[in-house]
Amino acid sequence: MSSLDQLFAPQSIAVVGASNNAEKAGYQMMAVLESSDLSLFPVNPKENEILGYQAFPTLVAIGKRVDLAIFTLPAGACVSAMHDAVAAGVGSVMIISGGFSESGDEGKARQDEIVELCETHNIRLLGPNTSGFIAPGKNLQATFVPGLEDLPPGHMGIIAQSGAINVTLAALARDLNIGVRLAVGVGNGQNTSAADLIDYLAEDEETHTIAVYLEGVADGRHLYDAVRSASQKKPVIVMAIGRSDVGDFAASHTGNLIGSFELKIAALKQAGAIVVDTTRELMSVAKCLGFKRLPPQENPGVALVTGQAGPGMIISDYLKHRGVTMPNLGNGTMSEIAQLLPPMTFIKNPVDTGRPGSTFAPIVDLVLADQAISAVLIFALHEPAAIAPSRLFAEISNSASKPIIFGTAGPAALLAETAQTVEPLGIPVITNPDEAATCMMALVEDSRRQYHLNLSRERSIGSDLPIIDSRSLNEHEAKVVLETLGIPCPNRRLAHTHESALESFSHLKKPIALKIIAADILHKTEVGGVCLNIKTVEELHQGLTQIDAIDTQEKKAYLLESMADNGIEVILGGKNDQSFGPTVLLGLGGTTAEALGDISMRLAPLSERDALEMIGELKGSELLQGWRGAPQVDIEALARALITIGDFIVANPQLGEIDLNPVRLYPKGLLALDALIIPGAHQQLHTV
Amino acid sequence: MSSLDQLFAPQSIAVVGASNNAEKAGYQMMAVLESSDLSLFPVNPKENEILGYQAFPTLVAIGKRVDLAIFTLPAGACVSAMHDAVAAGVGSVMIISGGFSESGDEGKARQDEIVELCETHNIRLLGPNTSGFIAPGKNLQATFVPGLEDLPPGHMGIIAQSGAINVTLAALARDLNIGVRLAVGVGNGQNTSAADLIDYLAEDEETHTIAVYLEGVADGRHLYDAVRSASQKKPVIVMAIGRSDVGDFAASHTGNLIGSFELKIAALKQAGAIVVDTTRELMSVAKCLGFKRLPPQENPGVALVTGQAGPGMIISDYLKHRGVTMPNLGNGTMSEIAQLLPPMTFIKNPVDTGRPGSTFAPIVDLVLADQAISAVLIFALHEPAAIAPSRLFAEISNSASKPIIFGTAGPAALLAETAQTVEPLGIPVITNPDEAATCMMALVEDSRRQYHLNLSRERSIGSDLPIIDSRSLNEHEAKVVLETLGIPCPNRRLAHTHESALESFSHLKKPIALKIIAADILHKTEVGGVCLNIKTVEELHQGLTQIDAIDTQEKKAYLLESMADNGIEVILGGKNDQSFGPTVLLGLGGTTAEALGDISMRLAPLSERDALEMIGELKGSELLQGWRGAPQVDIEALARALITIGDFIVANPQLGEIDLNPVRLYPKGLLALDALIIPGAHQQLHTV
Repeated sequence: MSSLDQLFAPQSIAVVGASNNAEKAGYQMMAVLESSDLSLFPVNPKENEILGYQAFPTLVAIGKRVDLAIFTLPAGACVSAMHDAVAAGVGSVMIISGGFSESGDEGKARQDEIVELCETHNIRLLGPNTSGFIAPGKNLQATFVPGLEDLPPGHMGIIAQSGAINVTLAALARDLNIGVRLAVGVGNGQNTSAADLIDYLAEDEETHTIAVYLEGVADGRHLYDAVRSASQKKPVIVMAIGRSDVGDFAASHTGNLIGSFELKIAALKQAGAIVVDTTRELMSVAKCLGFKRLPPQENPGVALVTGQAGPGMIISDYLKHRGVTMPNLGNGTMSEIAQLLPPMTFIKNPVDTGRPGSTFAPIVDLVLADQAISAVLIFALHEPAAIAPSRLFAEISNSASKPIIFGTAGPAALLAETAQTVEPLGIPVITNPDEAATCMMALVEDSRRQYHLNLSRERSIGSDLPIIDSRSLNEHEAKVVLETLGIPCPNRRLAHTHESALESFSHLKKPIALKIIAADILHKTEVGGVCLNIKTVEELHQGLTQIDAIDTQEKKAYLLESMADNGIEVILGGKNDQSFGPTVLLGLGGTTAEALGDISMRLAPLSERDALEMIGELKGSELLQGWRGAPQVDIEALARALITIGDFIVANPQLGEIDLNPVRLYPKGLLALDALIIPGAHQQLHTV
Repeated sequence: MSSLDQLFAPQSIAVVGASNNAEKAGYQMMAVLESSDLSLFPVNPKENEILGYQAFPTLVAIGKRVDLAIFTLPAGACVSAMHDAVAAGVGSVMIISGGFSESGDEGKARQDEIVELCETHNIRLLGPNTSGFIAPGKNLQATFVPGLEDLPPGHMGIIAQSGAINVTLAALARDLNIGVRLAVGVGNGQNTSAADLIDYLAEDEETHTIAVYLEGVADGRHLYDAVRSASQKKPVIVMAIGRSDVGDFAASHTGNLIGSFELKIAALKQAGAIVVDTTRELMSVAKCLGFKRLPPQENPGVALVTGQAGPGMIISDYLKHRGVTMPNLGNGTMSEIAQLLPPMTFIKNPVDTGRPGSTFAPIVDLVLADQAISAVLIFALHEPAAIAPSRLFAEISNSASKPIIFGTAGPAALLAETAQTVEPLGIPVITNPDEAATCMMALVEDSRRQYHLNLSRERSIGSDLPIIDSRSLNEHEAKVVLETLGIPCPNRRLAHTHESALESFSHLKKPIALKIIAADILHKTEVGGVCLNIKTVEELHQGLTQIDAIDTQEKKAYLLESMADNGIEVILGGKNDQSFGPTVLLGLGGTTAEALGDISMRLAPLSERDALEMIGELKGSELLQGWRGAPQVDIEALARALITIGDFIVANPQLGEIDLNPVRLYPKGLLALDALIIPGAHQQLHTV
């Protein structure tokens, strides 16, 4: 596949479907491209000239290879134009029009044909069904939405699965005084996906931050790998939708909402992305992270220097609620600051300066120099009567080069001036107290995630993992697999006759559980195939009789198992997800936890740190740490089991799922009480 | 107390501490007041004239009564100025300065003295420690923060506990094209609180919406009553902080964070307020609700008409995730719309129009006329090439007068023009897809809350409720109270000797629980004072011996109780909260639910609908509705118990708490297994 430079940094562009009719997209596209310095070739068999450029009947007729051909054609005309593009040897194609996979089977067939032509002939395709892209630094606006002509060039990369959101974000970027490197709408994105674009911008040195808007993700594993690799070079901020089921409307749009929202978010975070909730957060967080990242740290400390107590309260409340540490300043720092401020001023952290005055810069420098502090948020209302922000900030020496965010509030026009003067000093300006807090939170989260990634280097899984053939395993067989993996199960024996059951019973610690084993019975309890608490031979006989009465099509056996001691229960699962590949799930067990849906997920293979984070992420994780005097459970054993299940599912891509439900946790060790291994989707049994 | 009109609509103002020194607050206040048409009296014993106005040495020296005296004085000088104000008979006082209750004991004493003078002499006090207020319609800016001079007059009331946030919100209001009636910073607010201001603005006909920023709430019950009454007249939108413990910094600021955040939020919602998370949401939601409320409805249906599918996805995802119903349009509506749009367009709801064209207005009118639809959100990117928004919206007839919100995105300057032309048509413009969704959600929430309030008219509690004297009740006594209230407890007998225990045992259904009763033992289990599952006389003897061995200071007795059948457990409590008065709490029982903190709260007395909402609000409420084939529990009995506990705690303000933990729920009825009644704070025992 040719490089994306053909698309985003072309020397020559052809507009196929160019028009002299001002109401047509083919005219509007020509009109916006006119201002670029590139060679421009309108293609329209019915015209001789368009906007002063010589028109050509076909791409081939141009007589030389163009880097980018933009189709502003009805969907039905795109396939033959694509053949023309192949014949003309164009480097890349962008298709604006809708009417492809988002519009039903006919459109899907059209799109498949075009994508196949691109892949066969090594042509990069953006779209179809995209609003295009903007590269302000190259003076190139390949989209016909108005009002974005003068987007300032800069270093933010914007990738949006939806073209309209790309435009929304680009407009927001300008409002927030953000310079843009490239803003691109992915559209149907089958040839050039969001993940491809992340890979591309990760390598582009002029891109300092990547902001991504995601709908559904068909190539989740590629996205994960792309974000993981990119986030170690530059910050990646993502807004994702798909919390709710918007159903058939999604199918009618470019995107779809493949995969669970929770898994998507977990994968993005694991890969080092900062996940935000709104378009505005996406832009303001990306702006701040583009100025200066915090170096990777387990728990960076943040200080707040505020000119007014009220916004200081909002910011402190937000930061502490979101788990940001605001350490007390050192005694040395505090006593030096105390000499610069009136008595009774609050200076532990936050430092409440009152109206910023001449002591402002030295105070900020003292806070920046404090070794407990990694980053400083400054907040002050717009009050130039005190001291102009440009002077305030120019006097800060910040010799340790720690990140600073300046939060302010006041009339928009005046704040725009503040941004113009303060941001060239390397300090982002956020015009709202709560948004400033959100940005500082993101700075901390980014630092923590990178610290985590440093401790979670990719590792290869063991070569000695059991490989399972493609059939469902019964509980006994699944437990044999678990034991091979080093995950203990209760002592048990399999019996095929009453006689051997009796014999087995004599060897097992009582009480025991007696369970049916039969290939066509997946849910034993529901058919009466599980008898608990068997202490006597009499009770065993009753149990065997009960199981004998169950109607099965497959051969039946008896599983006898010593009952496990009480303990806290979790659910542990591995799955080969259609989009994200091998994943691991941990859930708190028991009816209440299941009803409350207390789970955490990660892509496998897991690092030890991933596993520990999964455990800590459960809302009820306190229950595992010695809740109300109960002993703490064996967290390490649980982490090991999570890692093992992850490795196992990676080694067995042919499998659908492995479920351990429940696993009982003890102060020392754990026991998998039930286990199920299910083949992949194409071989999958009815398992509900 | 005199009316707040003296403060906010004065005819005459004196500035005490007025100055000719441009760096002093006393100069800046005079400077901003100059532009009003009011009689202005500078008070400063050292000056003859300030800014062209004759200066007076004291308020008394003015020789006539002024409506408002603004103190721009150091805190230490305010007490004597207050005596002067009393002597001069001023109507109201505003104190800008800090140095009062927020700064320690000395400041607190000063404030107390001033507040007492105000109360004795019927003078309204705003502050101390406030940045003042702005009343643009009266051309009155009584705050010296710059840049707010030209705030457009309008109908939004803004109340902020913090002066700086008042300024932040006022600036935001202007950016969002919102006209302001009054924006006021409450400051320390001991004489004029946020609740007083809500009462005031509720009565003011020119105020159409009330936006409130809250920190701590000392007079929670007054706030609740004020919001409840106001929200039935006009929308009340609140942003509250206090999720985290910002500790001693809060005490150093005006506010404090009295009471639990969860209780504050629950009370606000119960009173009909719309609670938002950010300053920007506060202003944009208040803006939309100020245009047109939805009439009270249990579940209003919302339609989305979008010009672009991408933002349509964000909006639909958000609305559905937040529980807003987007009903399919009627078949009649759809077939009429189908004639106005190209084939293959999605029209069920959302209606995806593609670029808005000439059929736009008729389509919107068809959607508005659909009987399943109560409000319509329209989204379209700023694309005047399609059709100018002002024309689009002017053509909509909206004969049923349903609320419309127009969401758009694009360059800020162009969007400002859109707002200028569209908003006079009665349609608010929100310049961001996710913010537009948030606003529509708020419209729906407001409608639902008002519907709820209509079904929850204040009711008086019964006159036959038991009144408890001020001591702790033991379990047996507490259960007698519960039974009087109609809340059943397990069959039980109290015994003072082994003999009577044996006698009691013979009358009770086995197995039984045996518990210690002694006034100094609150937590029986921890001292070994509870023996469960007693089936035989032998086991009873063992239990009695075990209890006899417990060392108590008070007289001991034995409680024998039939053990209850298994069932789902909840916790039920009533409490007289220091700030909010009588409250009721419901929590899911069991270790897991307690660790996950699954609770809901309401102020008492409860309506039946309040009680049902509390139950539905539990994250694990599905467990009560027949989870995985289990029978549904008796929701009505639980609702009745909640109402009863609320009434009981209202009737017993001298009590601290009543705790029923656990209450076991059955398909028919419930049983309180344990109960505790604790006296109020001043008599409270050590109960941890």
